Formats: sequence, C-alpha cells, structure tokens
Amino acid sequence: MAHRKPQNLEIDNLDIQILSILMKNATTPYTEIAKELIVSGGTIHVRMKKLEEMGVIKGASLEVNPQKLGYDITAFLGIFLEKGSQYNEAVKQLQTVKEIVELHYTTGSYSIFAKIVCHDTSHLREVLNESIQSVKGIQRTETFISLEESIRRQISLD
Amino acid sequence: MAHRKPQNLEIDNLDIQILSILMKNATTPYTEIAKELIVSGGTIHVRMKKLEEMGVIKGASLEVNPQKLGYDITAFLGIFLEKGSQYNEAVKQLQTVKEIVELHYTTGSYSIFAKIVCHDTSHLREVLNESIQSVKGIQRTETFISLEESIRRQISLD
Amino acid sequence: MAHRKPQNLEIDNLDIQILSILMKNATTPYTEIAKELIVSGGTIHVRMKKLEEMGVIKGASLEVNPQKLGYDITAFLGIFLEKGSQYNEAVKQLQTVKEIVELHYTTGSYSIFAKIVCHDTSHLREVLNESIQSVKGIQRTETFISLEESIRRQISLD
Amino acid sequence: MAHRKPQNLEIDNLDIQILSILMKNATTPYTEIAKELIVSGGTIHVRMKKLEEMGVIKGASLEVNPQKLGYDITAFLGIFLEKGSQYNEAVKQLQTVKEIVELHYTTGSYSIFAKIVCHDTSHLREVLNESIQSVKGIQRTETFISLEESIRRQISLD
Amino acid sequence: MAHRKPQNLEIDNLDIQILSILMKNATTPYTEIAKELIVSGGTIHVRMKKLEEMGVIKGASLEVNPQKLGYDITAFLGIFLEKGSQYNEAVKQLQTVKEIVELHYTTGSYSIFAKIVCHDTSHLREVLNESIQSVKGIQRTETFISLEESIRRQISLD
Amino acid sequence: MAHRKPQNLEIDNLDIQILSILMKNATTPYTEIAKELIVSGGTIHVRMKKLEEMGVIKGASLEVNPQKLGYDITAFLGIFLEKGSQYNEAVKQLQTVKEIVELHYTTGSYSIFAKIVCHDTSHLREVLNESIQSVKGIQRTETFISLEESIRRQISLD
Amino acid sequence: MAHRKPQNLEIDNLDIQILSILMKNATTPYTEIAKELIVSGGTIHVRMKKLEEMGVIKGASLEVNPQKLGYDITAFLGIFLEKGSQYNEAVKQLQTVKEIVELHYTTGSYSIFAKIVCHDTSHLREVLNESIQSVKGIQRTETFISLEESIRRQISLD
Amino acid sequence: MAHRKPQNLEIDNLDIQILSILMKNATTPYTEIAKELIVSGGTIHVRMKKLEEMGVIKGASLEVNPQKLGYDITAFLGIFLEKGSQYNEAVKQLQTVKEIVELHYTTGSYSIFAKIVCHDTSHLREVLNESIQSVKGIQRTETFISLEESIRRQISLD
Repeated sequence: MAHRKPQNLEIDNLDIQILSILMKNATTPYTEIAKELIVSGGTIHVRMKKLEEMGVIKGASLEVNPQKLGYDITAFLGIFLEKGSQYNEAVKQLQTVKEIVELHYTTGSYSIFAKIVCHDTSHLREVLNESIQSVKGIQRTETFISLEESIRRQISLD
Repeated sequence: MAHRKPQNLEIDNLDIQILSILMKNATTPYTEIAKELIVSGGTIHVRMKKLEEMGVIKGASLEVNPQKLGYDITAFLGIFLEKGSQYNEAVKQLQTVKEIVELHYTTGSYSIFAKIVCHDTSHLREVLNESIQSVKGIQRTETFISLEESIRRQISLD
Repeated sequence: MAHRKPQNLEIDNLDIQILSILMKNATTPYTEIAKELIVSGGTIHVRMKKLEEMGVIKGASLEVNPQKLGYDITAFLGIFLEKGSQYNEAVKQLQTVKEIVELHYTTGSYSIFAKIVCHDTSHLREVLNESIQSVKGIQRTETFISLEESIRRQISLD
Repeated sequence: MAHRKPQNLEIDNLDIQILSILMKNATTPYTEIAKELIVSGGTIHVRMKKLEEMGVIKGASLEVNPQKLGYDITAFLGIFLEKGSQYNEAVKQLQTVKEIVELHYTTGSYSIFAKIVCHDTSHLREVLNESIQSVKGIQRTETFISLEESIRRQISLD
Repeated sequence: MAHRKPQNLEIDNLDIQILSILMKNATTPYTEIAKELIVSGGTIHVRMKKLEEMGVIKGASLEVNPQKLGYDITAFLGIFLEKGSQYNEAVKQLQTVKEIVELHYTTGSYSIFAKIVCHDTSHLREVLNESIQSVKGIQRTETFISLEESIRRQISLD
Repeated sequence: MAHRKPQNLEIDNLDIQILSILMKNATTPYTEIAKELIVSGGTIHVRMKKLEEMGVIKGASLEVNPQKLGYDITAFLGIFLEKGSQYNEAVKQLQTVKEIVELHYTTGSYSIFAKIVCHDTSHLREVLNESIQSVKGIQRTETFISLEESIRRQISLD
Repeated sequence: MAHRKPQNLEIDNLDIQILSILMKNATTPYTEIAKELIVSGGTIHVRMKKLEEMGVIKGASLEVNPQKLGYDITAFLGIFLEKGSQYNEAVKQLQTVKEIVELHYTTGSYSIFAKIVCHDTSHLREVLNESIQSVKGIQRTETFISLEESIRRQISLD
Repeated sequence: MAHRKPQNLEIDNLDIQILSILMKNATTPYTEIAKELIVSGGTIHVRMKKLEEMGVIKGASLEVNPQKLGYDITAFLGIFLEKGSQYNEAVKQLQTVKEIVELHYTTGSYSIFAKIVCHDTSHLREVLNESIQSVKGIQRTETFISLEESIRRQISLD
C-alpha cells in the first residue's frame, strides 16, 4: 500500500518529525528534539508556533489509567433518536453528562455513537437510565462493554 | 446521582486536584499548579512521582487535529471472527495495522471493536480490504464512519 | 385471564398449597405447614413423599446473594454454533464451565442461550475467550450484561 | 485460569465450604455439615448466623419441576420501551405479572430482559398480549422460547 | 425419533387412516376408502360424522395454482405495531385485506406475521402502501418474497 | 385500488365464479353450482375439465384442525445455508422431513423459509436438532412460533 | 440458464440490436449503425421513432465522473418512516433534495431506499441531518458508504 | 446549506454550465449550447475536448425503460463473503453476471452491495441461485426488491 503524504502543503517533513516525537511523549524538551533532528532549538520553536497557529496542535494531555482511578467500565453506546432531526438538541444535553468522553454522528444504524467511562455496572445503569435516556429525543440506547482494551495509541505519522 | 470517590485508598483529594489540572493541560508548570492549590512545589513533585509509580499516570500526549494532517475519515469497526477463540492471534496481527488507534474485546455481537483513522474513503477501502480482512481468523467487518465528532474529552475527575 | 388448573390429575389443591408455602421458604417445618392448612403432620409427609416420587419436587436450594460472594457480573449469552447439529456435543463441554448457571436450546436466532455469573468484566472476558469460545462447534457469542436484577422469584402457584 | 478468592474479607474458607454444601442441598442438617467439615455444630450455627446477617444467605427455596405442575413453556423476552426513561415505571407494573420469574435491566439492544413461565403457547399469547404489552411504556417485545433446559445450577463456589 | 400418537383419546387408528386418504384427495368416494381399509361404507360415514362434530375436519378446499390465475407474487410480511397491545384492533382491519391469506401472532421480533398473494410487484406495492400500512397501529412492515415454493403439503399423519 | 382481471386469456368470468364457489367448499355438487350460476350442469363439467387440464385446479384437500390431532405448535423457520449454492441439495433432504408443510426460496436474509407443524416444544426441538440441522449445508435456523392463527383462507377471486 | 426473449411482441431482433449499439454509445451516428446491421439508414430512423413512441427509449444522458467534479462520496440510505403510510408525502419532499439521485420503495426492512452523492463526509452529514432527517415522517436513516464502485453498466440486451 | 464549488481548479463555471445542459440531454447540438450560453461553438468544442481528456466526461448513454424490454424486477443485493479478503476474486467473477448493473464495496454489514435487473421473480431466483451464490467466496446474499422507482436522475450541478 503506497504511503500518502499529508495533503496540507504548508506542512513539511520536519514538521511531521517534530510531531511524531511529541505525539509519543508530549513533555520531550525542545532541545532534545532539536538534537535528534539535527536542527536548532529555535527552528523547533518556530515550527511549533506555526503548527499551533494552523490548528494542527490542539494541546497536550495527561494520559491516566482510568482503572487506577476507580473507573472500571468503558462502554460504547449506539443511541437511537425518536427523530434524526433531534440530533443538535440531544448533543447539547449530552454535553452535560460528564461520563461521556467521546460522541460522534455516524453512518450505519445508530444516530449517535458515544463512548462512556463509569465506575462499575451499577454506575453504568445510573448513567444510562438517569442521565442519558432522560435526554429529550433519545428513544433507546444499545450498549456494549469493553472487556479489554488491547490497543490505544495515536495516529502514527511515520 | 451521588458522587463516588475513587476506590483507591492511596489517592487523596490533592492528587485528584493535581490530576484535574494536568488532564486539562499536560504542560502546566508545577509551580503554577502548586500556587493554584496553595501547596509547595515539592509537594507536587512528590505526588506526581507517587502517581507515576502507582501507574495512575501513563504519560503525556500531544493532541493533534487529524484533519489538519490529512486524515479525514474516522471509522468504527465491528470485527467478526471465524471463531471467537482466534481473538489473541488476531489482536497480535492487528497491532501492526497502524491506522488502528483503539481496539477492544467487547460484549454484544462483535468479537472485536476498533477505531481507525484514514486519509479518505479510498484509503479506508485499502485498510479494510488489504490490511484488516486479510488477518487470519477475521471473517468480516461491519464499518461505520464518524461524520462529526461532537465530544472528545478526558474523564472529568471533579 | 381465566386461571388454569395444573393439568396433572394426580395433584390436588392441598398439594399446591403445601408447595406454595415451601416455595416461599424451603425450611418451613412440616408441623407449621400442617397447622396452617389444618391437616395432620402425617398428611404433609405423605403428600411430600408423593410429590417427590412424582418428580414434582427436585430438592431444596440455598439462595445466596452472589454480589456478597464477589460475583458482580451476571451476563446472558446467545451462542451461535458453526452448525446447529453440534448442539449435543457443545452442551457436554459447556457443562464443565462452572460459571454457566443456566443453559437453554431456544427458538429465535441463537442456537444456545446461557446465563453466566462472573466476578468482574475481566473474569467475564476470560470465561468467554478461554472457556466458552474454545468449545468445539461454537462460532461466536453475543453477550449482554445485567445492570440490575429487578425481579427474581419462583412461579406463583396461587 | 487462576482461581479468584471472594473479595469480601469477612468470608473465610469455612464459610465457603458450609455454603457449598447447603447450596447443593438446603436441607442438609447442621450436624452432618459439622461432621463433614470436622468442626463443632455450634460453629456451623455461628457462621450461618453471620452469613445471614451479612446478607450472603437470602433464604432457602424448594426446587420444583414446572413441567410436572403444568407449566410447559419457559420463554425469554427482550422488552423495548417507547423511551428508555420509562424503565422504573414499567418495572413496577411488571411486578404484578406473576408469570414473570426474572427481570433485568441489560446492556445490548433490549431495555428490559425477562424470563417467564407459562402453561402453553396459548397462555404465552395471553401473557404477552394482555399482561405485558398493555403496560404503559412498553413498545414491543421480542420473545424466544426454551425448547430444552440443559443446565440449571447454582454458582459453584469450589 | 420415536413416533408419537395423537393425544386425543377419542381418535383411533381407523380415524387417522380415513383422514390420511382424504387429506391426499378430498374427493375420494367413501366406498373407495371403505374398500381400501376393509371396513363398511357405513363405518366411514359414522367416523366422518364424528370427526366433523369433534371439529377435527373443518371442510374441504379446492387447491388452485395461483400463478395460473395471474397471482405471481407470494410474499411474507413481518408487521411491527406501534404498541403490541394494538394487536386485536389491527387484526380486525387486516381481515378486510383480501390479499392476506394467512396471519399469525408470533414469537420473535415481529408482532404479526402474514402471508399475502399478489398479481405482481406493483400490486404488492399497492397492498403494502395503501391497504396494510394505513391500518391504525401498524408502524412498519418487513417484506420478503417467495422466489420459489419447493414444498407445500398437508401434515402427514402416517 | 382498481381490480385486476386474471391475465390468463383462456379464463373467463364463469370460470372464476365456478372456482370461487369450489374454493369455499370443494365438495359443492356441480348441479348446485350450475343452478347458482344459471348454466347447465354440463357446462360446469366442461369448464372444470378445462381448468384441470390447464393446471389451474390442482386437486381438492381436506382441511383439518391440527390441534385436534395433537399438533399444537406451528413454527416458521428461516434457514441459513453455509453457502447459498447448496439450496437444491438441501431442499431434496428437507423433502423427507415430514413436519415441514411449506418451503420457499425467499428474498431477504434467509436462504430458505419453511413452515413446520409439531406436537409440542419438545417435538419441535427434535425436528430442529435432529432432522433439520443435520441436513448437509444447513448452518443454522431462526425459528419463530405461531401463538395464534388469526387468518387462514384462500385467495379471494371476487 | 435459458435466454429469454423480451416479452414485448412489438420489439424484434433488429430493435434490440440497434438499442445494444446505442446503449454502449448514445452518440453513434445512425449511418454507422445502419452499416453495421446491414440495413438502410432510413430503417434505423423508423425503428428509433417507434422505440421512442413506445417509451422504450427515454432519452440520452451524458455520463460524467462525479469524483472529477468534486463529488467524492456515494452513499446508500435505508430510510425508516414513522408510519409506512407516510411514503407518498415523504417522497414529495425528498424530490427537492438534489443530492438524492435514486429513490425506491422496497421490500425488506427499509421503507425507502435511496442513493445519494455528496462532496465529502461533512456534506453527507449536512444532507442527512438537515435535508433528509427533517422531512416529515422520516424517523431515522441507516447509511452505508460506497468505498469503491467496481461495476456500473447498463442492462446487457445480448 | 452553503453551496460548494467543485474542488477541481481546472473546471470553471462555463464547463459546469455546458455539463448541466448535456447531462439533461446528451444529444443537444453544440450550436444550441453555444447559443444558450452566449459563447462561440468553437468554445464548446474546446471545453468538451478538455473535459473528455480530464476524464470528467466518460461518454453518453441511451436511457431505456427496462420494463418496456421485459425487465420487471430491480433488486438490491447485500453480499456476504466467507472472508472479506475474497473481495477482489469475487468481483472478477461477478463481472460475468450480466444481470448485475452496479456493484460497490461498502461500509456497513455487507461486503459487497449490488443492483441487479431481472425479467421476473423466477429469473431473479436463477440469477441468485445459479449465477451469484455459486461464485467462490460468496457465503450468502440478502436481497430486497424495488417495488417502485420514485426518483432517478443525475447529480444536479446547479
């Protein structure tokens, strides 16, 4: 399978190399990156500034292990709306359900597809029954639970 | 809905407050965190070291906008295996498919559930047809595409 | 809805009354039952013996709260066989999976329908992946988890 | 698969052994249990009292053969609600349908999952059409019938 | 598979033999049946009268080839009701749709299952869209068409 | 909905009238039909002969009440083949399963759709498990049971 | 598989040959067709006029490559109506959605089946969410996207 | 909904206007197009040549009414492969099935989605059973039939 270059003409190979390093570890010092890529530290700063201004970089986030914080259940939800046109309204309300960590408008049979993180099955029941299914426009949900997360990583730019 | 405390007894409220700040911005300087929480900078270091040793913190990651890098398609895949027992073997091979950014063993009708990121529909076809469906043990896949990502955030510890 | 009498001609109303009392509490002393139904204790013995010989009564079981014993997950499994004719063979092997507490041959789309009890989601994954999906003839399973058991009772004979 | 101990710290091996014996036959005399486990009868009483107070033991029930009492049909029901939020109301009404012996709030596509016991297919039609589908909030049901119960047993604590 | 006798005690082997002959050809003269079974013609009359009075025999019908009469499409319809409780009302109205030749209340996902006979696909569209989907309480239908009828016969009493 | 005439040009209104009468009661004497339609008895004979030769009439059948003969279960079967191309072979073997009274090759998700008549649920299990699922090429079946037959009639030619 | 002749008696082999040539290339000059089929140019004109008057020929259309015009997404939509009887009304409104290039009333589980052409996934979301799901009577849609069009051709009359 | 311009920079508004006219009627003379758009006939020729060379225009096709040619059935086929990786091989063989007029590799649950045109239901059965289901790698098909084509048009470039 032939490898494709990013289509954005303003991004060159050096940008990609810098991003690759930081996507693996967001706290790598710029001096270390500069050394690895054999450019000046100033170049890294210039490039990072450009990538931030272009909106390529949105920020940095701490990765935590949810299990260690007492969140044992990761579940996926297919959400059926009473009418597809209630999507915008429903999303607004779903924003306030803090257990939802991801939400998509998708093709296929679901109107909305969400990922939620809960403490245990009893917490999941509360979130489904009290927080989500009471949202206006939501008819029913189809839930499946992750029993094991085997892969979780960022896009590889290599 | 009553709020639950994390069940891990070694984690106290200060730990949670530190995590909350860093989960919003992984590059917040410790001095700033210390100031905000009215503790010494050394305390932040001690706590962070503990949280890292306990495996609560797994690292920091740069958040990028995949669209800006030419990745226009986010898709979800329900994967059916010829036999459920081929799961371990299949996961090993799926590790090598770099477009897969998340992979779960789930309840419900799928054996495996994955999230993939591709350049365009033609790239998606290649990934499905050449990289994924040729994996030994995979019978067929059921794909749905994200047409809009409305929510994407970390677990709120508040 | 008109109430139907049991079709078994050998069972009369007194038998039903005795069964009703014992189905609520299997350890009710016969003397107490006799008193409540205004018959002699001997009659209760005779009837119980008849009901046991007829196979109406299969035994008595202690009801425990699985959660209190560390079994937090009750799950239902629709099992699809590679070929429906492998049912008898598969059942023999499934007998040895001690987490299975109920197993049925059903109409509808599943070949086999089972109820299992596990400690947690990680235990459920082990049971599905290692004990059940490795059974010869089993192609795949469709699992759903009980988030709350609202009713659990015996048939009411009243 | 490594064997897990119950997580409840107040329950020891002797408790488990007592429960195992009684879960197989709820009417085993304490003296017999004491003899088998080489402890005093008083110990059995003390432990049973503790297990009852802890809520581990909920009672004892007579196991009957429903077929011998004229109940020929065991059916499973996936219940779809008009809105998921009507769950609590619906359960209240379903409590009064005496043919329902088990009822769960589940993940997957159903809102509610129930097990019912009926005399025959005509009785099943009455229960579905008159008792269950007339409950406010219930949109439709998906029924499948057990044609054979191959396994029915308690959790094995061994 | 052991052969079961009909459970109705009032029906003997001779009755079954008479029924078998007439179920193959409803116009076989009684004299011929009598001869074949080596009984008197009067016996046949007596038995037929009894079977009619018992409701075993409901009548005789002419079997025609629908294709030869311009009915080219046989279709099966799964009918979903807005609420399961509207079944009785819906059936009353469906009685007036003359293209429906069979209608059942069934287990599984459909509320009602029907068989219809139409001239062609355009007639089928009319029946679905104008006669059936306009019935109060019917939400939607799931249709599948018979492309070939390979078996059509009466129950074999042999 | 405009009424269509049968497309077969050799069949006229008188033929249709004769068929209508006999489809309601296959044993109506020709003299009675002739009187009702104000034609000679000879005309009825001529027309019936023509309709038989044309294959419009296939015979006459006795309608019995299966319940009265101990057949309590009518079930519908969606049959999935391992490969769609095994249809012809599978049909040949299914011909020998006498409980099958109707069998179709259909559009939709099933390969084969069948109607079967059984004594009880235990007989149904035998037929499914021993007679049908052991047929070469049949992968699995999806069964649903008729809980009530509300309509059963011939095509109305009026 | 025996080859069938078109059932329309007014169309002969020469008509079919002319159609075959023009269905491959609608701009073939009549003189060229006449030469190839060894008839006079006038014959071609006469036949074409007849075929147009009969409604066999509806016109000629330019085939364009949608991708080259910026239409990257071809999607199929199964549309579920709140009530099947709203079909006629819904179609009227769907006529105004210019991205819909094909629309059918179909058997199976969908009420309406459509084919749409869009610029990209974001355009598809707009069409689904704003133009289609807001149509009165449409409950929800099930979308699947073409990742590759491998065959696209006219009916072969050969 | 804001109107998007085609992304291809080499195509201007005049090109789009020419295409629009010809997509409605492929046989419109260039002189007429030139007059309507107030440009010279030579310009139309130059533009058409460019659009053909760019692959925007693939040709012109005669639109016929399949019904008038004896093709009464339009059906859609979801095709499931034994393994998704057999797609390329299967497509090669499906190319030879002349009743297939469109074939796509799609997201969702099907591997392949096809549109076929047949004479009647009996022809459809032949195509499914003999031509398509015998293709190596095809496990089963899910067919639905168009009962009415309400919309069929080209992409509107306006």
